[in-house]
Amino acid sequence: MTRRDFIHSTSAGYASLLAWGLLAPAPASAFNLPPNGVSATGKARRVVILGAGLAGLASAWELGKLGYDCTVLEARSRSGGRVWTVRGGTSETELGGTAQTCRFDDGYYFNGGAARIPHHHQLTLQYCRELGVPLEIFNGGNEAAYLYNDQAEGTTGTGSFANRRIRVKEYHNDMRGYTAELLTKALDQGALDKELTKEDIEKLVDFLKNEGDLNTAHLYKGTNRRGYKTEPGAGATAGITTDPYGLTDILRSGFMQPVFYNVGDYIYEQQTTLLQPVGGMDAIPKAFEKRLAGKILFNAPVTELRKTENGVRVVHQKGGKPTELLADFCVCTLPLPVLKNLESDLSGSVKRAADFVPYIKTGKIGLQFKRRFWEEDDGIYGGISRTNMDINQIWYPSFGFQKPKGVLIGYYNFYSRAEAVGALPVAERQKLALAQGQKIHPQYATEFDNAFSLAWHRIPYSEGGWALYDDTVRRKQYPALLEPDGAIYFAGEHTTYLTAWMAGALTSARRAVEAIHARVG
Amino acid sequence: MTRRDFIHSTSAGYASLLAWGLLAPAPASAFNLPPNGVSATGKARRVVILGAGLAGLASAWELGKLGYDCTVLEARSRSGGRVWTVRGGTSETELGGTAQTCRFDDGYYFNGGAARIPHHHQLTLQYCRELGVPLEIFNGGNEAAYLYNDQAEGTTGTGSFANRRIRVKEYHNDMRGYTAELLTKALDQGALDKELTKEDIEKLVDFLKNEGDLNTAHLYKGTNRRGYKTEPGAGATAGITTDPYGLTDILRSGFMQPVFYNVGDYIYEQQTTLLQPVGGMDAIPKAFEKRLAGKILFNAPVTELRKTENGVRVVHQKGGKPTELLADFCVCTLPLPVLKNLESDLSGSVKRAADFVPYIKTGKIGLQFKRRFWEEDDGIYGGISRTNMDINQIWYPSFGFQKPKGVLIGYYNFYSRAEAVGALPVAERQKLALAQGQKIHPQYATEFDNAFSLAWHRIPYSEGGWALYDDTVRRKQYPALLEPDGAIYFAGEHTTYLTAWMAGALTSARRAVEAIHARVG
Repeated sequence: MTRRDFIHSTSAGYASLLAWGLLAPAPASAFNLPPNGVSATGKARRVVILGAGLAGLASAWELGKLGYDCTVLEARSRSGGRVWTVRGGTSETELGGTAQTCRFDDGYYFNGGAARIPHHHQLTLQYCRELGVPLEIFNGGNEAAYLYNDQAEGTTGTGSFANRRIRVKEYHNDMRGYTAELLTKALDQGALDKELTKEDIEKLVDFLKNEGDLNTAHLYKGTNRRGYKTEPGAGATAGITTDPYGLTDILRSGFMQPVFYNVGDYIYEQQTTLLQPVGGMDAIPKAFEKRLAGKILFNAPVTELRKTENGVRVVHQKGGKPTELLADFCVCTLPLPVLKNLESDLSGSVKRAADFVPYIKTGKIGLQFKRRFWEEDDGIYGGISRTNMDINQIWYPSFGFQKPKGVLIGYYNFYSRAEAVGALPVAERQKLALAQGQKIHPQYATEFDNAFSLAWHRIPYSEGGWALYDDTVRRKQYPALLEPDGAIYFAGEHTTYLTAWMAGALTSARRAVEAIHARVG
Repeated sequence: MTRRDFIHSTSAGYASLLAWGLLAPAPASAFNLPPNGVSATGKARRVVILGAGLAGLASAWELGKLGYDCTVLEARSRSGGRVWTVRGGTSETELGGTAQTCRFDDGYYFNGGAARIPHHHQLTLQYCRELGVPLEIFNGGNEAAYLYNDQAEGTTGTGSFANRRIRVKEYHNDMRGYTAELLTKALDQGALDKELTKEDIEKLVDFLKNEGDLNTAHLYKGTNRRGYKTEPGAGATAGITTDPYGLTDILRSGFMQPVFYNVGDYIYEQQTTLLQPVGGMDAIPKAFEKRLAGKILFNAPVTELRKTENGVRVVHQKGGKPTELLADFCVCTLPLPVLKNLESDLSGSVKRAADFVPYIKTGKIGLQFKRRFWEEDDGIYGGISRTNMDINQIWYPSFGFQKPKGVLIGYYNFYSRAEAVGALPVAERQKLALAQGQKIHPQYATEFDNAFSLAWHRIPYSEGGWALYDDTVRRKQYPALLEPDGAIYFAGEHTTYLTAWMAGALTSARRAVEAIHARVG
């Protein structure tokens, strides 16, 4: 029984169930437009798709279902674009950089680009279902991970927490405890009587006692939630809890800086549950690729994009030679930093958008270690440690638990940090990742195996992490990307409000397909 | 390089690294006592182990390494005790109940007993490593799960939230928002100036603004963290956030009841990361069993336990006949409700402990559905929904995502709820689970396939969930279980401060083995 059948079979209609909160908005399903890709002469209409990232792949897949004759031109020798899993044998040469080949052992990898699927990205999940891509949990929040506030020697002002790692669970529970205590105190003193009735205040105090694990006097004196010095065990070992940090100490610790904000696992895109494909994120583009056999031309960078009377003319490399391709329509998914350098007769407004929409600078490094010390010694199974150092985040893998070796992401950084680190030669990036990471995990010193780093703003055919819109850019530049420029339709995360996400690329593809299909009529 | 080698190789010693917070207490490792299980006559000492649950299995495994000659007597035809995975073909007959055989499809299952491994249960994780049991993440907290406060018709007092499901993320973010707003207000009004300096208050307000997603006027007016009415998408679809609930409405909603406490994912044993064996929790006992081939006698319930001059005499069933077994030592892991009915000459204090330590009543039902509507329609991938109804908790599976069918746990209840539901015939339990669950998931009505339920207090050879100690029982009864009674040593979660957990059973086994080994000397 389909969901639609179910709704019709119940006495309450869809609208009333929805109003009662009994149904979420309709979930994503397979895209089912009536096939109509054939021209009046009975010939399939030709669509050339620029880029075999998710937007291009999904466009080709959906257009193919509708009877269009698609060709995907892909500059690289692989599909996926910024959906890229780095494993042994992966090689890349950045703009202005030297060749790097990954030397991870079999079965170890990291996702260099897209790395998590929020549970509400229904379209990404729908395509995984449709293409048979098995999923597993991506562990975002981890109470056992660390916060580390680095202070250059001689700098003062961060008190007892400088250059010392603390567990997220310690920070979370202490802050919950102290803020619950303070609010309870204010409520007990009648400071907020204007806001709430006496009965509501009682209920709120009950909530706060549990939320902060306050004692009977409504004070926070620590909690076993933040961990034990001696774990409970057998026999007489009752366990000894750790002592809380002082509120003043925490407030002066530097952990109030944005880089440490206690909200990483609250925000909509990162809250539980997150998912990832088993075996690497590139399982998604590979699954599309399998269904698009013969339709993708690899190693075929586009050098020219021209409007013709009846469609488009695209010049691309084929076997090292410039080759022309004529089509009725084009779906252009090239990232804007790539588009802006393309020879074309695109309209001025599109060219301005390509020039003025900024893209984030961002980088990652995968570090293979001989031993999963973060699991064995620290009880960290997935999740993210945060620091104000240039490495910014350390990501622990959410797969391959307890295997002999492991690959973690030694930095994931953005903006100026990514620019500075990305500007270094790969050997220097590795050195930096190890030196800074070692402050959090001293085991780095002896367990390191090998590394592979990337800076998205320096990766050919991407040249950036994702589009960054502020209100002004969204108002001035964005609209040009939403309309077709002649027979050229734009797709990619930069044509959505889901920038940076695979779901953005996928929904943009459906939008382009729908528009072309409506025009063909 | 081992961890010990690493520590010795650094200039800083272990103690100073520990003091700096750079090392956690030593992680669990394989148990390495010097082998010494052979008596003066050169004959291996015999140990009879009662029960092939985790405590019994680990005892046999560790004693075997040391040269002891072990026999495990197990009443059931399977190992694992309360570590029990229910799948197609599983059958059980409860005390006073009728036979039940599970009809789940291949590959679908639920863990009837132990179901999660906290990341700090190092011993459980160590045995998984030692025995090669692959692990995956168990998703405990899930922001997409539901809270549902059921009110019998005509009852008043829960306002607009009665009989209506809300998302955990809505409740979490609204409460964080309102409490942050209230505390900020109190701080802004100077109500807490005695507590903190002006500078610290500024830092705390900064924290609260982020924690609660307050606006520039320090007010909580909702947040996209609680979800969207219309998700952001391609083109002009910017997304429309949901409206927050009112604080007063939430406070009067009934969600302040303990059953809904916002702390399930804060408390030490349930905070991220939790793990589970791939394929079911019984992978752990099965891995032990494989290494104890020929040492476990199944279908061998013990009927008599006697002390002899040189050890113990155990009468058990073998091929339907009472059979005697003599041994130098006994490790008795029988749950106390089973031990108390055993013919024995155990000491008065042990018998009193068996009589007076209460065990929890608890039950679960596995429901197989023809479609994973909780994933497809609701975006719920693992985690737990909570309700004040008798079903108490609904657990969504953390594996097999997006498969055609699925098994969820339709109730997980405790105490009087478990007693009431467990007293019903299995058909009635199923009816109750469906009727109540359907209030949260109307899809139950059309998607249900089949069910298997269990009430641990009615399961033969367990007769309870786990030992429940309060301070008095811990003081009066617990000590008797920590000393050997003649040559009889006690093990099992009830002999630890880790009651209810596999880690308790495992650490109790090591304790018993250590004690026997020390006595043999």
